[in-house]
Amino acid sequence: MNDRTAQPIGVFDSGIGGLTVVRSLLRHLPHENIVYFGDTARVPYGSKSPQVVREYTLQDTDVLLKHNVKMIVVACNTVSAVALDVVQKRAGAGTPVMGVILPGATAAVAATRNKRIGIIGTQGTIASRSYTNAIRELDPAVEVFGQACPLFVPLAEEGWTDHKATELIAREYLHPLVQQKVDTVVLACTHYPILSEVIQRIVPPAVRLIDSGEATGHAVAELLGRSGELNPSTLAPNLQFFVSDIPYKFTEVGERFLGARLGRVQRVGGLG
Amino acid sequence: MNDRTAQPIGVFDSGIGGLTVVRSLLRHLPHENIVYFGDTARVPYGSKSPQVVREYTLQDTDVLLKHNVKMIVVACNTVSAVALDVVQKRAGAGTPVMGVILPGATAAVAATRNKRIGIIGTQGTIASRSYTNAIRELDPAVEVFGQACPLFVPLAEEGWTDHKATELIAREYLHPLVQQKVDTVVLACTHYPILSEVIQRIVPPAVRLIDSGEATGHAVAELLGRSGELNPSTLAPNLQFFVSDIPYKFTEVGERFLGARLGRVQRVGGLG
Repeated sequence: MNDRTAQPIGVFDSGIGGLTVVRSLLRHLPHENIVYFGDTARVPYGSKSPQVVREYTLQDTDVLLKHNVKMIVVACNTVSAVALDVVQKRAGAGTPVMGVILPGATAAVAATRNKRIGIIGTQGTIASRSYTNAIRELDPAVEVFGQACPLFVPLAEEGWTDHKATELIAREYLHPLVQQKVDTVVLACTHYPILSEVIQRIVPPAVRLIDSGEATGHAVAELLGRSGELNPSTLAPNLQFFVSDIPYKFTEVGERFLGARLGRVQRVGGLG
Repeated sequence: MNDRTAQPIGVFDSGIGGLTVVRSLLRHLPHENIVYFGDTARVPYGSKSPQVVREYTLQDTDVLLKHNVKMIVVACNTVSAVALDVVQKRAGAGTPVMGVILPGATAAVAATRNKRIGIIGTQGTIASRSYTNAIRELDPAVEVFGQACPLFVPLAEEGWTDHKATELIAREYLHPLVQQKVDTVVLACTHYPILSEVIQRIVPPAVRLIDSGEATGHAVAELLGRSGELNPSTLAPNLQFFVSDIPYKFTEVGERFLGARLGRVQRVGGLG
């Protein structure tokens, strides 16, 4: 019998923002082994062209496939938006691939009452209209309003979560969505949950924020449950973190995103 | 006779910020042919480790060497700080290499009266202490205070040059330098001249801002004059722009930095 249950879940991201998705996985699936890869040598992806993001995605997928993963979670919204097919094709039929867009879109459609949903993300994610398409496929009656927020990633990495400047910037970005009277806003970038308090303060109190990464943790648990591939272990899982660079403030920023100690992180060379 | 005068000056940068250095070159040397390469597929370098920056630098240098350049200008402060030797070794003795740090440091030492100089730049540039070392070599009596300003690059790229949030952020970053009573501040990142108005508003009026890129244009003109390699042409120069990716808002941001129309930009593949 080929027991895949103990094989790790592979997660990759353009950098360390995807650790917010790992945090969600650990909450929903506390006994699953995880291999994480962050392409910190080439981060960010969100402002780069789809062509370049697709090239990098192929290499990121290969890093995870070497670790004999039982499935791949694409934590990066930009990759999920413009290159999910690249991952699926490379991984092959035996290795399921889950992006963050369908879970986020599904949660948003379930949450909205007035059928007006805002999406905030990188330029790549918003320009792709991937969330809009996914939402409209789930419910054609929903109106979707996208807004790129390029300064949110550096603000989250700097840890300026409660700064007056962050509030001013968020107010400017979110103004068009508030004007459109959305009742649901999707945090369509791994970094944005770090800023959810300031975002929630700016939008009207009834507006629901949907964390795509959180929704993805839930969706992964469901998928593995359905396919009978949940790890039956009750021990602490084996977590392995790989990156293409150890940049400045790596541990500080990484632990803020993961919400826990990172432990040992290994560098993967030869990518760029 | 081997006439090198018409060969282009090669300029490279981690992205398109180096176009502010090209702008300065065009002002000082309006008839020099220029080949520019921006590594927009892997930008930014300023938060990445010296090891990764040195790997990328080698490849960037090779892109320029293919164009038979008569000298190389390293527009990127981070590369000038942690990898100038990589460029020099690859280019060889026959191709002079000019970084932005020595020109910037020289201009700052000439400008200061109270011998207290502030340096603002990326995390990589500040952590390297390259400006401090260069300044102290020119004048050991000068005190140097470094301050990393990671949000300045995304603010400059977003074009938020006159926004209240930018002022708040700049005030926070510059506060320690103002407290140290520096009378000179070096803009040690290609993006920062875009924000010079707001920076000048925040520091006391007598504080002089030194633009390293501007100082570099002057230094390149002097170097080529001394070596007899100035282009005697009085025609409009041939400007060639190469990048490793055409990212979002490329032309808009690039033309803001260059201060002119960009014309045709060609993508160089196979780097990352």
